[in-house]
Amino acid sequence: MRIDIITVLPDLLKSPFEGSIMKRAIEKELVEVHFHNLRDYTTNKQKSVDDYQYGGGAGMVMNVQPIDDCILDLKSQRNYDEIIYMTPDGSTLNQKMANSMSMYENIIILCGHYKGVDQRVRDLHITKEISIGDYVLSGGEIGAIVFCDAIIRLIPGVLSDETSALTDSFQDNLLSPPIYTRPAEYKGMKVPDILLSGNFAKIEEWREEKALEHTKNRRPDLLE
Amino acid sequence: MRIDIITVLPDLLKSPFEGSIMKRAIEKELVEVHFHNLRDYTTNKQKSVDDYQYGGGAGMVMNVQPIDDCILDLKSQRNYDEIIYMTPDGSTLNQKMANSMSMYENIIILCGHYKGVDQRVRDLHITKEISIGDYVLSGGEIGAIVFCDAIIRLIPGVLSDETSALTDSFQDNLLSPPIYTRPAEYKGMKVPDILLSGNFAKIEEWREEKALEHTKNRRPDLLE
Repeated sequence: MRIDIITVLPDLLKSPFEGSIMKRAIEKELVEVHFHNLRDYTTNKQKSVDDYQYGGGAGMVMNVQPIDDCILDLKSQRNYDEIIYMTPDGSTLNQKMANSMSMYENIIILCGHYKGVDQRVRDLHITKEISIGDYVLSGGEIGAIVFCDAIIRLIPGVLSDETSALTDSFQDNLLSPPIYTRPAEYKGMKVPDILLSGNFAKIEEWREEKALEHTKNRRPDLLE
Repeated sequence: MRIDIITVLPDLLKSPFEGSIMKRAIEKELVEVHFHNLRDYTTNKQKSVDDYQYGGGAGMVMNVQPIDDCILDLKSQRNYDEIIYMTPDGSTLNQKMANSMSMYENIIILCGHYKGVDQRVRDLHITKEISIGDYVLSGGEIGAIVFCDAIIRLIPGVLSDETSALTDSFQDNLLSPPIYTRPAEYKGMKVPDILLSGNFAKIEEWREEKALEHTKNRRPDLLE
């Protein structure tokens, strides 16, 4: 998979892509991630990428020209499955979307910043608008980090043990059951006997029961 | 506000806190963020922080001891409003939660990693469990970045123009109306006349109408 990220703050994106799973995926050449600094595409002397909004009101708006030129440049080099805009009014990301989007070959991710992008950018180029949740962040960069991590970890070969991703929360619409590791007793708190029993059929049954109970308590909406 | 983040990957967290709004908030001394490397709290020679899960199954589980010791150390120094665990089965973050949590004085954020933490950590210390959305990430660090950005930008004085946060999506359960900036015409695409009219009462009316229409189309659930 190739991911092209268009941003005004490429430095902000760095460390999450240099650590953990995303780093490993890049090293294994399972994914390529390129940051494009929007300021390199401005045609004005000040390298300004935003301006006041028409009609008045607080917050700056990102200009259409540098974004249009950057996307046209990328599109002239290869075909893209989607041109994604990270925005709080997009479709809310969920595991099912992450699963299917982990199969893309080439995508562009545009990070909105300030108040957002000029509507004409959306009309001209954007094929999918994604939100990571019902809250506002200071920029689309953080949404892009979340989105990339969610899809990159699902690319076959990225996680060392593929069953690990398949037993995650949400994959079967259930939250995970409680988990324990050594020691068997800590400050008087014991691991449930069943998990030490070695009876794997019973353990599986216990886990399913606990997962269902936990989901009923916390997220009954997932069971509807 | 003081935020203490407990993590196995402090380097992964760096760049988002060194850029944009969070950097500005730290420089203005409106927020202090401290990273605590969990490995500094291990008592075993290998500085190992995780182990296989009891009962079998894929994925490692974070040990209770280093987390318990780290949290006890922090709690001995000051009182905390909440000890938060970032986990996909927590309460889903929304703007209302972010608004109220932006008023905390001291919080601890524990980043889960691998399959998650030993259940006894949750039973012993955690006062609030937060998810940033219905998808799985490779670690709680990315969730912590999102959570911190969402609350830090709301601290008075962090954003240069406070009305900017108040007119964001979700603050009034409406998505934002379309926004435009210069030029008035780009490749034949014109800014709506109303926004150039100078009639601010009419512009406000148009924006409300568009915001409602946009929300009805995309997120009717927000209007219920």
